Amino acid sequence: MKIINTKDKNFKEEFENILARAKSDIKDVSKIVTNIIDEIIENGDEALKKHIEKFDKWEFKDANELLISTNDMEKAYKNIDDELRKSLHTAYDRIKAYHEKQLPKSWIDFEDNGTILGQKVTPVDRAGLYIPGGKAAYPSSLLMNAIPALVANVKEIVVCTPAPNNEVNELLLAACHLCGVSKVYKVGGASAVAAMAYGTKTIPKVDVITGPGNIFVATAKKLVFGEVNIDMIAGPSEIGILADKNAKANYIAIDLLSQAEHDEMASSILITTCEDLARKTDIEVETYLSKLERETIARKSIDERGAIIIARDMDEAIELMNDIAPEHLEVMTENPFELLPYIKHAGAIFLGENTPEPIGDYIAGPNHTLPTGGTAKFYSPLNVENFLKKSSIISFSKKAIQSLGEPCALLADTEGLTAHAKSVRVRLENN
Amino acid sequence: MKIINTKDKNFKEEFENILARAKSDIKDVSKIVTNIIDEIIENGDEALKKHIEKFDKWEFKDANELLISTNDMEKAYKNIDDELRKSLHTAYDRIKAYHEKQLPKSWIDFEDNGTILGQKVTPVDRAGLYIPGGKAAYPSSLLMNAIPALVANVKEIVVCTPAPNNEVNELLLAACHLCGVSKVYKVGGASAVAAMAYGTKTIPKVDVITGPGNIFVATAKKLVFGEVNIDMIAGPSEIGILADKNAKANYIAIDLLSQAEHDEMASSILITTCEDLARKTDIEVETYLSKLERETIARKSIDERGAIIIARDMDEAIELMNDIAPEHLEVMTENPFELLPYIKHAGAIFLGENTPEPIGDYIAGPNHTLPTGGTAKFYSPLNVENFLKKSSIISFSKKAIQSLGEPCALLADTEGLTAHAKSVRVRLENN
Repeated sequence: MKIINTKDKNFKEEFENILARAKSDIKDVSKIVTNIIDEIIENGDEALKKHIEKFDKWEFKDANELLISTNDMEKAYKNIDDELRKSLHTAYDRIKAYHEKQLPKSWIDFEDNGTILGQKVTPVDRAGLYIPGGKAAYPSSLLMNAIPALVANVKEIVVCTPAPNNEVNELLLAACHLCGVSKVYKVGGASAVAAMAYGTKTIPKVDVITGPGNIFVATAKKLVFGEVNIDMIAGPSEIGILADKNAKANYIAIDLLSQAEHDEMASSILITTCEDLARKTDIEVETYLSKLERETIARKSIDERGAIIIARDMDEAIELMNDIAPEHLEVMTENPFELLPYIKHAGAIFLGENTPEPIGDYIAGPNHTLPTGGTAKFYSPLNVENFLKKSSIISFSKKAIQSLGEPCALLADTEGLTAHAKSVRVRLENN
Repeated sequence: MKIINTKDKNFKEEFENILARAKSDIKDVSKIVTNIIDEIIENGDEALKKHIEKFDKWEFKDANELLISTNDMEKAYKNIDDELRKSLHTAYDRIKAYHEKQLPKSWIDFEDNGTILGQKVTPVDRAGLYIPGGKAAYPSSLLMNAIPALVANVKEIVVCTPAPNNEVNELLLAACHLCGVSKVYKVGGASAVAAMAYGTKTIPKVDVITGPGNIFVATAKKLVFGEVNIDMIAGPSEIGILADKNAKANYIAIDLLSQAEHDEMASSILITTCEDLARKTDIEVETYLSKLERETIARKSIDERGAIIIARDMDEAIELMNDIAPEHLEVMTENPFELLPYIKHAGAIFLGENTPEPIGDYIAGPNHTLPTGGTAKFYSPLNVENFLKKSSIISFSKKAIQSLGEPCALLADTEGLTAHAKSVRVRLENN
């Protein structure tokens, strides 16, 4: 792995490359996706048919064939290995318990003059989850997207997933059954996002679209923002690790690789105060790499986008990590909790050597849909609030408008909005 | 005003038009705005200079001239009318008190096996507020955008506002001083949004952009979503009023007009169960209209986009209103609180005859930046959370990974991610 020292002359340049890891020119992709969206708006199910024939290589006669029956989901659920079903249940229970803690309550507050102010929390009517498909199955993505919607009490959850050759992975269907998702459509890519954003005769229009996907899916989500709400625009996976001399090189190495195996574009960055650990980690990475099933992908990611940075001290290490704002951050130091106040930007923070990142991907409880590419500076992990929205509640008494009406009308006057002012003053006259 | 009855034959068609009130083809606007954004990315301050000369009709030699001095803001604050300054302070205090109630806390939770899960809440580093300018001043918009950022404890707040002929409204500057905003730049339109999203030599790149604006500003916000976070994409203002026979027609009329005076594209809709009230309101609207300073704008809005709907009963009225999902909803019925459980979609809900919508624009406390065009189905009012983001906290003990490690690794195996599985199992072997 590339080892760089913050004292190196070219460090700033190297670090700029790490910061710019997620920059990609999506202009060409945008054009293609804009056309796909326009086709779906114009031709609905007919456009879906065309795109599915082209990309997923199967034909349907009736668009209702896109809907997977709940029978098939139940069958899949019963058919999977017992141990696996148990693991899915454990994950489900833990994810649910964590997200229930996020659920905000409506509130209301009172003033002596009779004024009532508050905030009403309401779930969206319909949520659309995009779940990647094909050969690989991502039942964990289904759990991580469906459960916060369930906890938010969303009445209708719609799932879209691609079905190459009209096949959908059994595990995904089993997870849908477990979550009680009843509407799963065999549609993938930008078409699926467009269909859920605008609605077709078959696919219902939703209020919010969440879920991972490739650059086409991400671009489609960006383009339909405003027509529906969107959780975030996510890119390739990433891990940042902060470690001092107490950390174990083999743990760090395999954790770096657990992100690198996702994608050639994934980034795995260790920042450490210990030069010896840096060198040992480098050796361990090579040892694990050569034995990895997904060696080719992981090696390309590590070679081109991985880095070990040696920092002067932990303060500098943390500052650099905050600049990176990684999707996953592992802290393997003597007392990791002590550093929490200084960590500003990270999707999820994994503390201590017994908390490897994959534990958060599947079973810990918090969501694994996390902001990437530095967007942890402004996005949160997928959470219950993505499926809720709020309404302000305002109730003024006679007394309240008598005391606050005139200052209000004065402000309206200064903004030149005289009907606003009149609307208040007509109450003052009548009261 | 147009009066329609839900029993009318053509009601469905009429209602569809109300639902589609905000649909506009922004393709041409998108092209123009995309070019503006590209220019800012490429030429930074030079592009700003060009756009300001073109749109705001003034030239700067040095881009530092874009920054308004805090001295000028203080002078403006001292210079405004005493009564007005007092009103601004009242508004400031009430808005701040309300938003402080929204502030979420970091939390942490413990399990018997030593597992710790939680959520860390952190403000964004830098927020960018877009405040419209020109002849009209909107000090209230400044308060409504700056205060939630202040309450969220955002360290750096940047304001951009257009300065036609190099002039900025004194009231806006006074409000900036009141809120302690120190960085106000004289840049407007899509250029301002692009500059804050990507940064120029003079304007710093921000993490989140909020604030109202015309179609160019709204489109720019949509296009930079993902590069920064965005509060919402807002369109013309709207009011929906639910009223029964107890409501006062003159109150309703002036409240409808208080939205209509904003914009020819504004929508003002009354839904009532009382035919008599419908007719009386229609007459009152005409009476007020003829005396209104902004009569031309308001009349066009009322004629083309206003409507009074007579519903069978309150259940039907509420159902229709939920479909509309108005930005502002007034409830003027005998016991408005009783209806709260059934109101699902509205930006802000104003209860009772002493709570006219303008009270919420200026002084009640809740935010006046609200979702329009039906987007209250998925967006919330601007709030403290727009300026915060969260990080998940995960810490597993030895005991925890021993009990949950194997189910986790099994799930990783089934997804074909063997380095993930290995990362967990290497801990199990070593523990």
